[in-house]
Amino acid sequence: MRRMPRTDRVLMGPGPSNPYPEVAEAFARPVLGHLDPEFIDVLDDTCERLRQVFRTKNQLTIPVSGTGSAGMEAAFVNWVEPGSPVVVGVNGLFGERMCDVAARCGAEVVRVEAPWGRALDPQAVLDAHPAPAIIAVVHAETSTGVRNDIEPLGAGKGDALLLVDCVTSLAGIPVETDGWGVDIAYSGTQKCLGVPPGLAPLTVSERARERIVERPRSWYLDLNMIARYAGATGARTYHHTAPVSMVYALHAGLGAVLAEGLDEVWHRHAECGRLLQDGLQKLGLELFAEEGHRLPELTTVWVPDDVLPPGLDEAGVRRTLLERHGIEIGGGLGEYAGRTWRIGCMGHTARPRNVALLLAALAEVLGR
Amino acid sequence: MRRMPRTDRVLMGPGPSNPYPEVAEAFARPVLGHLDPEFIDVLDDTCERLRQVFRTKNQLTIPVSGTGSAGMEAAFVNWVEPGSPVVVGVNGLFGERMCDVAARCGAEVVRVEAPWGRALDPQAVLDAHPAPAIIAVVHAETSTGVRNDIEPLGAGKGDALLLVDCVTSLAGIPVETDGWGVDIAYSGTQKCLGVPPGLAPLTVSERARERIVERPRSWYLDLNMIARYAGATGARTYHHTAPVSMVYALHAGLGAVLAEGLDEVWHRHAECGRLLQDGLQKLGLELFAEEGHRLPELTTVWVPDDVLPPGLDEAGVRRTLLERHGIEIGGGLGEYAGRTWRIGCMGHTARPRNVALLLAALAEVLGR
Repeated sequence: MRRMPRTDRVLMGPGPSNPYPEVAEAFARPVLGHLDPEFIDVLDDTCERLRQVFRTKNQLTIPVSGTGSAGMEAAFVNWVEPGSPVVVGVNGLFGERMCDVAARCGAEVVRVEAPWGRALDPQAVLDAHPAPAIIAVVHAETSTGVRNDIEPLGAGKGDALLLVDCVTSLAGIPVETDGWGVDIAYSGTQKCLGVPPGLAPLTVSERARERIVERPRSWYLDLNMIARYAGATGARTYHHTAPVSMVYALHAGLGAVLAEGLDEVWHRHAECGRLLQDGLQKLGLELFAEEGHRLPELTTVWVPDDVLPPGLDEAGVRRTLLERHGIEIGGGLGEYAGRTWRIGCMGHTARPRNVALLLAALAEVLGR
Repeated sequence: MRRMPRTDRVLMGPGPSNPYPEVAEAFARPVLGHLDPEFIDVLDDTCERLRQVFRTKNQLTIPVSGTGSAGMEAAFVNWVEPGSPVVVGVNGLFGERMCDVAARCGAEVVRVEAPWGRALDPQAVLDAHPAPAIIAVVHAETSTGVRNDIEPLGAGKGDALLLVDCVTSLAGIPVETDGWGVDIAYSGTQKCLGVPPGLAPLTVSERARERIVERPRSWYLDLNMIARYAGATGARTYHHTAPVSMVYALHAGLGAVLAEGLDEVWHRHAECGRLLQDGLQKLGLELFAEEGHRLPELTTVWVPDDVLPPGLDEAGVRRTLLERHGIEIGGGLGEYAGRTWRIGCMGHTARPRNVALLLAALAEVLGR
C-alpha cells in the first residue's frame, strides 16, 4: 500500500483556500447518524449561521450536498421550466456556465455580455427582456477577479427572480441577500468561508420558494424534498444521507467567521487585497480587472513575456512557486490561459503574512 | 457561540456506519488545490482502489461529488434520453427511487415488482420489455435487507445496459462488476466502505461509455466533462472543484478495506450478519427478509407489539438504545415504519464485539 505525501501548501489560487484551524477539529468529531437528534442540532445551527453570513431571514437556507457547481445547478433546476426566459449576465467563465446549466434545464437563455475583466452594466441586464422569469448574475467572477453590482438589479428586477452566484463573494465582501432583494443565492465552502470544498450553501426567498416547480428534473437537488429533510418545513422526512463530516466542517468555518465578526472579516479581506494589488503593481505587473470593480479576495494580473525570467514561461513560474515555496497560485482561463495569473486571498489565507510571503516569493522567482 | 456536543455512537442503523480509524487521519491531512499534482496523485490512486473494490478494469471509475443518491442520478441522467425504455426492478424504497429518477430524466419506465422483503425474479426483469435501453436493479435493498441476484441479469441482458445500485453492497458482499457484466454501478461511502457520507463511487463499462448522451440534462453530473477532469481521458480539464478532504477520506477507507483484503472483509461481514441474525431469532424476533436473500450487512426484523416492553413503542426502544447505550439502529420505511427495525453491521462497525453489544443491549431494553 502506497503512503501518499503529506505536503502542505499556502493556497493562493482561485480556491480552495487554507481552512480555518477550527475545521480540523470539526473533522475529528465522531460521525453521527444523519437523523440523530444531536446531528440535526448541528445541521440546524449550521443553517442559522448561514443565514447570518448571507444576511437573510430566509427560512430555506441550507448547505446543498455538493460543491459550488451543484449549488448553481440547484439554483436553476428548481425554477426553470422549458421555455422560461432567463437573462444571464456573462463576463467570465462562471456566467458562461450559468448559460449552459440554464439551457440544460430548458431555459430560453438571453445573454448580456461584457468583456472579461469589466463589470456588467446593470441597466443592460435589466433591459434585456421585457419579462424574464429569472435574472442571473455572478457576484464575484472567479475567472476574472471582477465584482458585478447586485443592488441595482434587485431594485429594478420587477417580477423576475434575482439569482446570484456568491461562490467567491460570501464572507469575503459584503453580500446583502435581503437588503439587495436577492431571491436565490448560492456559494461554495472552499473560498472565503475557509472550509474544504464539498458543500454549496444556498438561500431562497419566500417569493422564490413559492415558485419552485412541482417536480424538478433533478431528484437529488429537488428543493421540495430537501426542505422537508432540512427542517425548513414542518415534519422532517428522509431525503438523502447528509454529508455529516462536511456539515461539521462548514459549521466550524462559519463559527470562525462569525466569532471574528462579518465586518471584521470583510475588512481583513479588503486590506489583504489592497496590499496584494499595490505590491503586484510595485513589481511592475498590470492588474487585469477594471478599477473600481476589483475583488480583494481574487486578483488577476497580466503576465507579459517581458516580466518572465529567462527559461521560465507563465506555467513555469507557478510551478516554481509551488515546488520551491509551497505556494499555489492559479493560471488564467479561456483565452487568458497562459497570459494571466489568478491570485486568491480568501478565508484563513487572507492574512497580511501570506500577502508578504507571496510578494517576496514572486519577486524572487521573477528576479526583481 | 454554542459549543456543540461531542457524543459518539455505535452506528448500527442503515448508514452511516462508524468510519475506519484510518479516515480520521485522512481528514487531518493538509488541504491541497484540486489541480495540485500531489492531489491528482491521491485522486488517481483512489480511482485505482475503487477499481479493485468494484472488481473491474473500467477506466471510467471515479468518486462522484455527492452522496449515493447523486450516484444514482448520475447513473441515469448520462444515458436516458426522452422516451428511453428503462426496466426497473422494484422491491423496496430504492427501486422506487430509481423509477422517480429515471422518469425525471424522461425515461419510459417499466416496473417489475416483487413484494418488499422478497427478491426480484431475474427472468421477470429480463422479460419485461423486448428492447430496453437500461435494466436497473438495486443489489442490496437498504429498505428491506434483501439481496437481488445480479449475475443472471448480466447473462441475459442482451443489448441493454445493466445498471446496478451497489450502495449497501460494495465492500460488504461480493460485487463482481466485470464478472457479472454490470455496465454502470454506483455506491455510497457511508456503508460498507466505512467512510462518512459525501461521495458516490461510480464505474462505467466501455460499452456504456460509448452510449453516454452528448449533453446530459445535468451539468454537474455530466460524465463527458467529469471524465476529462478525472483523467479517464487524455488531458485533464477543470470541471468542478473536487471535494478534496472527502477524497482523502475515501482513499483511506479503501486503503483499510484493501489492506485487510476483500475476501476477508466479505467474510467478516458474513460472520457478523450470521451472529446478529441468529442472536435476534434467539431473542424471539422474526426476520423480515426472505431466507437465502438476506444481506449480512443490513438485517431487518419484525417488531410485533408483544415483544415490546410495557410503556415503550417501537420508536421508544430505539430511543432507549440511543440514549442509554449510544447505539443507533434504524426504523422501517414506507408501510413498515413502526413495524420493523433495520440493523446495520457495515464497514468498521462489522465486528463481533458490536453484534454482542447490540444483542445484549436489546435484550436488556426488551426485558428478555
